[in-house]
Amino acid sequence: MSLIVTNIGELVTNDPEHNVRHDAAVVVDGDRIAWVGPAAQAPAADLRLDADGAAVLPGFVDSHAHLIFAGDRAAEFGARMAGQPYTGGGIRTTVAATRAASDDELRGNARRLVGEALRQGTTTIEIKSGYGLSVPDETRSLRLAAELSAETTYLGAHVVPAEYADRPDDYVELVCGEMLDAAVPYAKWVDVFCERGAFDGDQARAILTAGAKRGLGLRVHANQLGPGPGVRLAVELGAASADHCTHLDDADVDALAGSDTVATLLPGAEFSTRSPYPDARRLLDAGATVALATDCNPGSSYTSSMPFCIALAVREMGLTPTEAVHAATAGGAAALRRTDLGRISPGARADLIVLDAPSHLHLAYRPGVPLIRHVLQHGAPR
Amino acid sequence: MSLIVTNIGELVTNDPEHNVRHDAAVVVDGDRIAWVGPAAQAPAADLRLDADGAAVLPGFVDSHAHLIFAGDRAAEFGARMAGQPYTGGGIRTTVAATRAASDDELRGNARRLVGEALRQGTTTIEIKSGYGLSVPDETRSLRLAAELSAETTYLGAHVVPAEYADRPDDYVELVCGEMLDAAVPYAKWVDVFCERGAFDGDQARAILTAGAKRGLGLRVHANQLGPGPGVRLAVELGAASADHCTHLDDADVDALAGSDTVATLLPGAEFSTRSPYPDARRLLDAGATVALATDCNPGSSYTSSMPFCIALAVREMGLTPTEAVHAATAGGAAALRRTDLGRISPGARADLIVLDAPSHLHLAYRPGVPLIRHVLQHGAPR
Ligand SMILES: [Zn+2]
Ligand SMILES: [Zn+2]
Repeated sequence: MSLIVTNIGELVTNDPEHNVRHDAAVVVDGDRIAWVGPAAQAPAADLRLDADGAAVLPGFVDSHAHLIFAGDRAAEFGARMAGQPYTGGGIRTTVAATRAASDDELRGNARRLVGEALRQGTTTIEIKSGYGLSVPDETRSLRLAAELSAETTYLGAHVVPAEYADRPDDYVELVCGEMLDAAVPYAKWVDVFCERGAFDGDQARAILTAGAKRGLGLRVHANQLGPGPGVRLAVELGAASADHCTHLDDADVDALAGSDTVATLLPGAEFSTRSPYPDARRLLDAGATVALATDCNPGSSYTSSMPFCIALAVREMGLTPTEAVHAATAGGAAALRRTDLGRISPGARADLIVLDAPSHLHLAYRPGVPLIRHVLQHGAPR
Repeated sequence: MSLIVTNIGELVTNDPEHNVRHDAAVVVDGDRIAWVGPAAQAPAADLRLDADGAAVLPGFVDSHAHLIFAGDRAAEFGARMAGQPYTGGGIRTTVAATRAASDDELRGNARRLVGEALRQGTTTIEIKSGYGLSVPDETRSLRLAAELSAETTYLGAHVVPAEYADRPDDYVELVCGEMLDAAVPYAKWVDVFCERGAFDGDQARAILTAGAKRGLGLRVHANQLGPGPGVRLAVELGAASADHCTHLDDADVDALAGSDTVATLLPGAEFSTRSPYPDARRLLDAGATVALATDCNPGSSYTSSMPFCIALAVREMGLTPTEAVHAATAGGAAALRRTDLGRISPGARADLIVLDAPSHLHLAYRPGVPLIRHVLQHGAPR
């Protein structure tokens, strides 16, 4: 069946030539955008969705989320807000809870978060493993992730698990070998937490190279807690995305700007760890592609809200509201190397949201307010 | 009819002796809390609301909102995010739009915002005039406000309107005289924007004193954009609340701490004007009572979300999640001098919320995520 969206107050297409259109209509056929043009010239359609003067945008593409876990870390959060620093050490708490959980518990928790994100306008969400850290637990994490998203990421290299604490290179060998073999059937991407206290540049290189050999695309958790080799390694190896990018020097920025590696910024993590925010303005001005994502996880950023990330990016990272919305849609699509997402133009997947507001500006102008009125995902009303 | 809330994971009562309770149940009779105690000893009730292990809190008391206006200022917001400072001058834009609007337009807009706030857990919301700034327009603003809230505030002294720009003292005389006469039947409170560019200490004193003589309670917009006499004037005159409190010296803090004037902090305004946040920690440590409110208005803080304000207060103002929740409930009640609100104990009004989370910590731990599952207002499911 076809569907037409009419009475659109403002249409954000992410088409560079007509990014923000007025008096436009959108026709969806099945799960694809079929037509975009002046409302007066719109073809007929079977169904009609009246946007009532509201803004219509591409659905958000959240390219960085850790949704396969059990338990929460509210107490750790409370302690951090009373002054304790974030070191990433709490990841092991979630690993223990995740290993102890049943498939149904993990599935139910992840479904809950995917649904919560969808109600906030996220129509595509990447899902990482990384709280299993054993061959069977990473495998089942990815199997469960693959039930919920086509964008699954093998993050066996999230942290060295306690049982390998005194022989981390053995763990790297496992991640590059038997664990990778088991992950490949369920994973599209491989990712490494390249940071002091997690995996160094050489270890990250070994893991990413092994993943690439097995046909996985590359992503890197890079330069979150301090300067490091992550960003340049990501660029050198042709990763789709370097994520966090909080501590960058000029060479890092230049490397990103001269590459097609997207700088994925995760302001929810800085919010929830009370850390300085990355400078999105500097990256955009240098010519890098910037994405925004939630980093949804129970330790350092337990938000599923892309609108919240947009508002933070405007308040704290130097983006205009229009740039922030672009980063949360087209930017996320680029970070996943998807040309069919993050835009409203013929041939794209019919993922779009109708706001409870006349303009995309309101996502930053009205922070914290739930502004998603309708969601179409793959052409289906949700 | 009576109603029992069972299976509560965590009950936040704001009773100093049992603030956070487990294994408790709450019984509501009509519009009042009738009983709070151990679930095993709960009396029978006609209706049963199963909280399913979630946290139950008093409804939020938003003691500072400007909801009677027309139009929005999204474009001004966009310009500010591109670097222009906030001066308060844009208020006149909203005044022109408000004067030009019909009663039904103003009523519809305010109703929309009250409903939006309610869905985010706000069961009491103060509503100010202040975009009319003429006798008929302030009067109708308060008349419309009184349709929606018992907590109505006369803010004729929001800014000097353009037509009085060269004779501000004549405007003060109007605010203290004919406009006050017209406002009194609809207003519970009088408020002044005491700030450079708005009303100075002498003008504010005249207006507040005139309002008090007519039986109105006092509130003051104080020390938002810079240091000033507002806070000490509020304390001296026995105001219920000094609002903003962004720029305080030690004498201001001491004055608040030695008084029953509440320091009402409005972090949405600092977020949306990219200004430094007030130091809530300093105020609490000194012994002042702190409230959190949205300042919902189309210029400097267009959020209706108390959960968002709680998350900001924790991230930016030094409150623990528990203190922030207290400030958003009991603090707001104190700022309105209401002893029947902001607590869950026998005799209080039956305003309570059930979260989509096991603990009140999640309001800060999960920023931006809509976490309000159920709302009871005056005992009625909303
Ligand atoms: Zn991450
Ligand atoms: Zn105000």
